[in-house]
Amino acid sequence: MKKTIAIIGAGMMGSALSIPLSDNGHEIRIIGTHLDNEIIDHAKVNDNHKTMKRALPKGIAYYYYEELSKAVQGADIIVCGVSSFGVDWYIENVMPKLDPAVPMISVTKGLVCEENGNLISFPHYMKKRGMGHFNLNAIGGPCTSYELADRRHSCVAFCGDDINTLKMLKSVFETDYYHISLSTDVAGVECAVAMKNAYALAVTMAVGMIEKQEGEGCTLAYNPQAAIFGQSVREMRRLLKLVGGHDDNVIYAAGDLYVTVYGGRTRLLGTLLGRGLTMKEALEKLSGVTLESVSIAGRTYKAIKLLSQRGVVKEEDYPILMYIGSLLNGEEDTGMPWAKFEEERF
Amino acid sequence: MKKTIAIIGAGMMGSALSIPLSDNGHEIRIIGTHLDNEIIDHAKVNDNHKTMKRALPKGIAYYYYEELSKAVQGADIIVCGVSSFGVDWYIENVMPKLDPAVPMISVTKGLVCEENGNLISFPHYMKKRGMGHFNLNAIGGPCTSYELADRRHSCVAFCGDDINTLKMLKSVFETDYYHISLSTDVAGVECAVAMKNAYALAVTMAVGMIEKQEGEGCTLAYNPQAAIFGQSVREMRRLLKLVGGHDDNVIYAAGDLYVTVYGGRTRLLGTLLGRGLTMKEALEKLSGVTLESVSIAGRTYKAIKLLSQRGVVKEEDYPILMYIGSLLNGEEDTGMPWAKFEEERF
Repeated sequence: MKKTIAIIGAGMMGSALSIPLSDNGHEIRIIGTHLDNEIIDHAKVNDNHKTMKRALPKGIAYYYYEELSKAVQGADIIVCGVSSFGVDWYIENVMPKLDPAVPMISVTKGLVCEENGNLISFPHYMKKRGMGHFNLNAIGGPCTSYELADRRHSCVAFCGDDINTLKMLKSVFETDYYHISLSTDVAGVECAVAMKNAYALAVTMAVGMIEKQEGEGCTLAYNPQAAIFGQSVREMRRLLKLVGGHDDNVIYAAGDLYVTVYGGRTRLLGTLLGRGLTMKEALEKLSGVTLESVSIAGRTYKAIKLLSQRGVVKEEDYPILMYIGSLLNGEEDTGMPWAKFEEERF
Repeated sequence: MKKTIAIIGAGMMGSALSIPLSDNGHEIRIIGTHLDNEIIDHAKVNDNHKTMKRALPKGIAYYYYEELSKAVQGADIIVCGVSSFGVDWYIENVMPKLDPAVPMISVTKGLVCEENGNLISFPHYMKKRGMGHFNLNAIGGPCTSYELADRRHSCVAFCGDDINTLKMLKSVFETDYYHISLSTDVAGVECAVAMKNAYALAVTMAVGMIEKQEGEGCTLAYNPQAAIFGQSVREMRRLLKLVGGHDDNVIYAAGDLYVTVYGGRTRLLGTLLGRGLTMKEALEKLSGVTLESVSIAGRTYKAIKLLSQRGVVKEEDYPILMYIGSLLNGEEDTGMPWAKFEEERF
């Protein structure tokens, strides 16, 4: 049955969801935030996403942020398409204008580190900020916006508290290339896909480390990357357990780590760090773009530090995260802690 | 303390171990099998490995198979360097000539499928074939021979029954680039690194599938690879549980899968399959080279089939393995079973 979907935030991931939704014949509205005016201007004229550089389906109705209240009228589903940096803004400015009975599904990846060190997902955070009367759902899993827009096979998980809402959302979004698992384990799914960020930096540091030795453009080595990848899976499993998520969610953590190390700004940053640049120098090279991955890595690091002080976890169980966190803090680079990956299991 | 190590089998992985051993100052002997005469001839003259195309340390003593009994005299450690295809031959022809009190460590990756469908590791298989009086140990983990020879950071696991032997082996082999974890969970470590083979074929099929659509040399897509990678981790965790291995070994399965999809003949075979060639056509393109990965994938597939008949497992819990197995059997290609990756966890 044809539904009306309002996507709030005209970023790449939210906008890319218009492709499967349009293929399924739904009515789509994209509402830019106050930061998205150029994207909306461009899309209105060209049916094209300015930063994703992909065609958008014809027939989408585009709105500026000022038109939000009108644009969400009669919507059957709200997609929250803001980045992790926009979550507080979204809670304070957008949600009060929405009907809490309309199911919402969020593409925002991230975690919040509470004062006591507990890591919570954004749906959980929204509830804590008084939005518990909303029907909150979220999307996790390894899926880049570019490739979703290109209709590449992508496997994701929709998570939320209500099974019937999840089933309805799946029926609306699923196509023969966009494959959707369902889970009521919100903490597990959301934490799995957020925590891979520190680890993607570490795996791609191995790229820069070999370039530093052999020169840029050299043949890359994969034993070191695989070693860091394996240790990352170990640490992510521990983090999953820590937040109370089901262990099977490690498949999203591993899949999302895999897709993240292949390209994009996180790989570039990791490579620069591996070449020996400090975090400050590397971020300057990236023209001061604030990376979500850096922010999320920092929060996870901070959480482990706080939880370690409380005796809940041991820092030595997370050698990669501790190392990346030290670089984020601008501490001296002590080198990849290879020897700390060694464990004896008798 | 300086030890004498006899490496039996002059293949790439066994020979590459001479690099860390030599860096640690040990005396090394490499004994070719009857298939290795050309490698031994070449190494004797050039201090170089003919197929690995890497320098070997000066001072290694090389022996032909006929000299085996002499070559192992006084050795402190035996390295079994044969491939999985040579295991029966090794048990029948080599082991009777060895002193069972000398610790043996094997680089052979693989699994044996017993008649009832049980999957067992090679050390376990050797015991079942009357070699239980040997001190058997094995090496698992993501480590290609080329990169070990290039002294790239590599993290592996040594496994065996006796803690003190494992600690001794670690002290002999470990360098500042060859990092060794220890484990008495032989089934877990060995199965983790063997079972990744079917899955490496599946992940790299996604490379060929996109080339089939877009032409060779096209921009690759990573959402599909990541989806298969994630599902592979899920299935490998189930296989690990099945053989009674500790779940943490999934880090070796994931790491080894990661390093395997990056290159080599398994990637080439998977790519050809993804382009639409039948298994027979693809293997012909590889000039009839018998791939260990294909053999191991076939055994794992056969095991699940047998165990399913006995009601121990459900085939539907292993959609990728069942799909790869059907291709190995020459059955019609029904396509990557994307929809079967979807799970509902409430």
